Order: sequence, then structure tokens, then C-alpha cells
Amino acid sequence: MDIRFVKREQLKEKPDQKNLGFGKYMTDYMFVMDWTKEDGWIDARIVPHEPISLDPACVTLHYAQETFEGMKAYRTKSGKIQLFRPEMNARRMIKSNERLCMPAFPEDMFVEAVKELVKVEKDWVPSEPGTSLYIRPFMFATESALGVHMASKYKFMVICCPVGAYYAEGINPVKILVEDELVRAVQGGTGFTKCGGNYAGSILGQVKAEKMGCTQVLWLDGVHRKYVEEVGTMNIMFKIGGEIYTAPIEGTVLPGVTRDSIIHILKDWGYKVNETHLAVDDLMKAGHDGTLEEAFGTGTAAVISPVGEFVYKDDIVKVNNFEIGKLTQKLYDYLTGIQWGDVEDKYGWTVDINA
Amino acid sequence: MDIRFVKREQLKEKPDQKNLGFGKYMTDYMFVMDWTKEDGWIDARIVPHEPISLDPACVTLHYAQETFEGMKAYRTKSGKIQLFRPEMNARRMIKSNERLCMPAFPEDMFVEAVKELVKVEKDWVPSEPGTSLYIRPFMFATESALGVHMASKYKFMVICCPVGAYYAEGINPVKILVEDELVRAVQGGTGFTKCGGNYAGSILGQVKAEKMGCTQVLWLDGVHRKYVEEVGTMNIMFKIGGEIYTAPIEGTVLPGVTRDSIIHILKDWGYKVNETHLAVDDLMKAGHDGTLEEAFGTGTAAVISPVGEFVYKDDIVKVNNFEIGKLTQKLYDYLTGIQWGDVEDKYGWTVDINA
Repeated sequence: MDIRFVKREQLKEKPDQKNLGFGKYMTDYMFVMDWTKEDGWIDARIVPHEPISLDPACVTLHYAQETFEGMKAYRTKSGKIQLFRPEMNARRMIKSNERLCMPAFPEDMFVEAVKELVKVEKDWVPSEPGTSLYIRPFMFATESALGVHMASKYKFMVICCPVGAYYAEGINPVKILVEDELVRAVQGGTGFTKCGGNYAGSILGQVKAEKMGCTQVLWLDGVHRKYVEEVGTMNIMFKIGGEIYTAPIEGTVLPGVTRDSIIHILKDWGYKVNETHLAVDDLMKAGHDGTLEEAFGTGTAAVISPVGEFVYKDDIVKVNNFEIGKLTQKLYDYLTGIQWGDVEDKYGWTVDINA
Repeated sequence: MDIRFVKREQLKEKPDQKNLGFGKYMTDYMFVMDWTKEDGWIDARIVPHEPISLDPACVTLHYAQETFEGMKAYRTKSGKIQLFRPEMNARRMIKSNERLCMPAFPEDMFVEAVKELVKVEKDWVPSEPGTSLYIRPFMFATESALGVHMASKYKFMVICCPVGAYYAEGINPVKILVEDELVRAVQGGTGFTKCGGNYAGSILGQVKAEKMGCTQVLWLDGVHRKYVEEVGTMNIMFKIGGEIYTAPIEGTVLPGVTRDSIIHILKDWGYKVNETHLAVDDLMKAGHDGTLEEAFGTGTAAVISPVGEFVYKDDIVKVNNFEIGKLTQKLYDYLTGIQWGDVEDKYGWTVDINA
């Protein structure tokens, strides 16, 4: 892939690495490529991060034909910069696009675009413990037309921002509201994709959870309102009676890259991982009878997010005395160890941006 | 509401009224207003229809916090320009926004914005039979931030385009595929709103229907995959054994303005209207035993769209010998008569833009 480069006049000042937050500072450049029905993917370019111009009738502003991915670049102690399983994000975006009737952005081009952009932005990859460069590939329809249809023009873009340590003051377990009215996804819908509509529809659940003094919402399945699916924008896993339980990938749950990695590791560590439908009643029962040992969300942003409490209707269960569980901590240390290059990557998951 | 006006240097040439199509020609101006957490709705303005500038990190391009409405302005034979139940669109957008955690755009401001824009664009309201000015109010988040959250900045806009007669060569019944895999909406989700995500998720069903030689897709409910909900982007009604059946407004089906108007008229005409769950098996059975007399979609674009055939798995039923039914035709003539001012509006549904 030939990538055209447009230099920016003046580079931005880099922010204080101890105060990065999430998504507050966009880097200097972005990767852009256009798709048309006639020409396919054309004009790969790395250009200054600047506003884009869209006609008010642009399909994306009305019918949300848009998908995205989220991934990170990590700086190791030796100064090397590495990605984590970027091909998984590329493949998932292809699946998302299929469901949304959007053209595929090929896997090899996806990984190359990300690598080349991160190379250009290497000075933006922070080195403070726990920090990383968040990478956001996304794609959306650019055609202007008011009929609901498969658009004939798209843009694939990658933007980046340095992000702080997710747990600035150590990992804190969170309180979770089990949502029994609002639904995130249903079989036959778009739940397994990273499409904009899934996220717009989820905000109300999050707001409701916060009003109830909870940090996140735990979604139940849309058909029976019974089986545990995802928490907020993460997958969720439970350790019950020594075994691991998590929702299966059957069309409603996002096939998380962290989820997949954690399952691999757990199996290697000898755990039985049940990718199965866990009823919320059984979860609460396990919480009360003491067999629910640990619970944690998995996702790119936090990697592992321990759950300290579940609130479901009038029932509340505490998990592991509202402390991070041993296995949760061990998984967090091991996986972030691989990502930041402190632990040997025996799975071959990390990819040097210069390789 | 004070509306600032920015004149455009040169007006566009008006297109041939006999060849308008749908959404091909945008008018000269658009209405715009901004919302911020601090100031609420500010800076109402009618400005030239021009591209808008968005940061690539704009929430709408990633999480689809966006809603829209669709309505029309009609030119009567006497030259008067009128809207059809604009307050219904205003109220529905408020409901959509509530679900998407977006601020309400007040009903009176909504109607005023539409009226004032149409007044400015009065020469764009076509006069050929069956033509109208399509009006698209829409709202979307403009904040730039990559965290999933309720945005702090929004834009409300109204754009317009003259549209041709929906049935250039008379009303033709269409062939409909009953979709039994893909799902449009489920209780607890966003089905009752006009949010972008609903439409992005529906395109695949439409593509599938077209591949099967059908014009539209008929969606079943997401829980049982059994009850008839909507067809394409319209509500749907059935005349079975002399009575009318249509899906109830319970969270999954769009509360259509045309749907509501048709139900009013039907009741006035003495029909029993059952807003109830009709199983697709019962629909097909009624098709085979001859009690299914008529079927039609209702929506702003086509007003009434007669169904000539349903295809469900291996089963096919023809409706009224693939001809438009008597009641369907009568409803179409009566409602479009009111809209274009040829029939007395005893319901007070039409609103003169100068009133």
C-alpha cells in the first residue's frame, strides 16, 4: 500500500503523561482512505488531524452506517512500541461491516495502516507506567442521500490519543446494576458488531446505573431478560465454584479481543471455561451461597475491571468482600505484563510496529 | 425565537418537477441551532445549505447519538403551502431524544423552525401532482470525545429537498419478504425511535429481500420471531375478515404519523382496528383461506403502499390478486386529498405555513 504523507506545519505540544485521561488529546496525524463503488479503496494517506467536511445530508448523520474498533500501542521498558493482536480488530471490523452492509477494509491494509500511523506518531506513545496510545480505526458512509440504502462512498480513518493509566490509584472493584428493562442486543440484531447504534442505545442504561450509585450496567439477554451478557462496554466473566463462566459468542455479545485472550490464558492455567448462558438468578444465588468467588469485566480500555457488587432489583450481592480477587489480579498482571513487554509473550500476541 | 438569516450569494437552479426522484436535490437553505450544556439551545439561524465541519473524534461518527424526523410540505391547487401534523414529528423527536439521552428540541420551536425554513424555501415547494417538499429535521452530537457518554454539545438542523410523486405510474402493489433471521427491534431497545442505529441495522434485511426478488422486508418481533411488526421503514396494516390489524405501539414499532392518521380515519369510517400482535402464521393462513382481503404499508414517503404478495419461508400468499384493494385506494385518495388540500381537512391536521 502506497501511503501519501502530508506534513503538518507545526506539531502540537505533547501533554503531561501523568495527566492524560482518556481521549482528551488527539495526536498530530490521522490515517485516511476512501472507498467508492467504482474504485474500491483509494488514496491512502497520513495527514494532519483536522476537521472533516460533511454534507448535512451525509448518510452517517441520519442512518448511522458506521463501525469502529479500539486498540492500543504500548511502549515497553526497552523503548520498543508494540500492538496487541491487531489482526483481531481488523477481522472484527470486517464482520461488523458485513452486518452493516459496508465494504470490508482488508486485514493486511488495516494492520499496515495502524502500524504506519503509530510509526509517524511514535513520540506520542507515552512511557509512564500504565499509559498507552489508544488507537481508533473507524469507518463511515460519506454519501449524501436521504434514502435508506447501502451507501456508495465510505471513509476509513484511524485517529489516536495518548491515554493514562486506567487505574491511577490501583484497581478498584466497581458496583454493577443488573438492568432488567432496557436491552442492549438481541439475536438477529447488531449486538456482535462495533457499530455506532449499539453504543447510542446503551447510554440510557449507563445513566440509569449511575443514578442508582453504580458504575456500570450489566445487560441481560433481550429474549428472556434472564441471561447475563455484557457489562457496560466490556465482556464479563465469573468464577463460580472454581470454574469460569462467560456469555457465548452467538450474535448478541461483542467478541472481545481481551475476552478471547483471557479465555486462552485461563485454559492454559487449567481452568474450565464455560462459554454458556448464566441466568442472573443463578448468579445472585451463587453470590449468596458463597460460590461466586470473583467477577470481572474484560475490555481494551481497562483490560480487567473487577466487580465488587451486583445490584439486581431488590437484591444485592457482594463479590469477594468488595476486594479484587486473586485470579482477577493475576490475570491483570499477566496480560498487562505481556502488553507492556514485561512478561514473555509465549502466545505471539504482540506485534512490533517496526516488524 | 429570533432566527438569524444568512443570504446565499447565488440561488441554485430549480430542477425539473417531472424528474425530482427522492433526495436528489437539496434546497438553498437549512435551519441550524446549537445546544450546549451551559447555554441550552442557541443561535437559531437559516443559512445556505453547505457542508459542515466535524472533528474526526465527533461522537456521532463513533457512537451514533443521532435522531431524525421526516415530514413534507404540500402545495395546494390554490398555491397555499401546508404541513401535515408537524407537532406529531416534534413530539416523536422528543421521545427519540429521551431514549438516546439527547436534549429535547421544544415542540413550538420545532414547528416554527420548519415553518420559517419552508417560507424561505417556498419556491422550492413543487406544484406538479403528487410532488412535495420533503423536510428532514435531525439532531446529532457534535462533541469530540472517544468515551461513550451523553454528549455535551448537539446540533439541530433542518434540510429540505423537493420530491417526486412516489407512484409515478399509479400505485403498484409490492412483494414482501417476511424476515425470520434478522431482527429490527426488541422491547427495551430503540425500535420506537427514529435513531440512526435502527436504520443502519435494517439495511441487510432490505438487501436480502431484494436478492429474493422482493421490494421490502417484513420484520417479525425479536423475542418470539412470530408477530408481525413493520415493513421496511413503514408501519403495516392488514384487512382480515373485514377488520383491520396492526402492531401495537409498545416499544418496538415506530409510532408513525401516517399510521395514527389512518387509524383515526378507519375508526371514523366504522372499521374495527385491532392494535394487536398478529402472528405471521395467522397472516399466512388468512392469505390461504381468503380472509386476508388487503394489506398496506403506511409512511410519510409513500403514504400508503399496497402489498401484493408475502413470502415467508417456503410459503407464498397473494393479496387481492396482486391488485390494490378498494379500502387501500380509498384511504390513499382521502389522506393525500387532505394533504394536498383537495379534500376538506375535518381533523385540523394541516397547518398553513403562514398561519
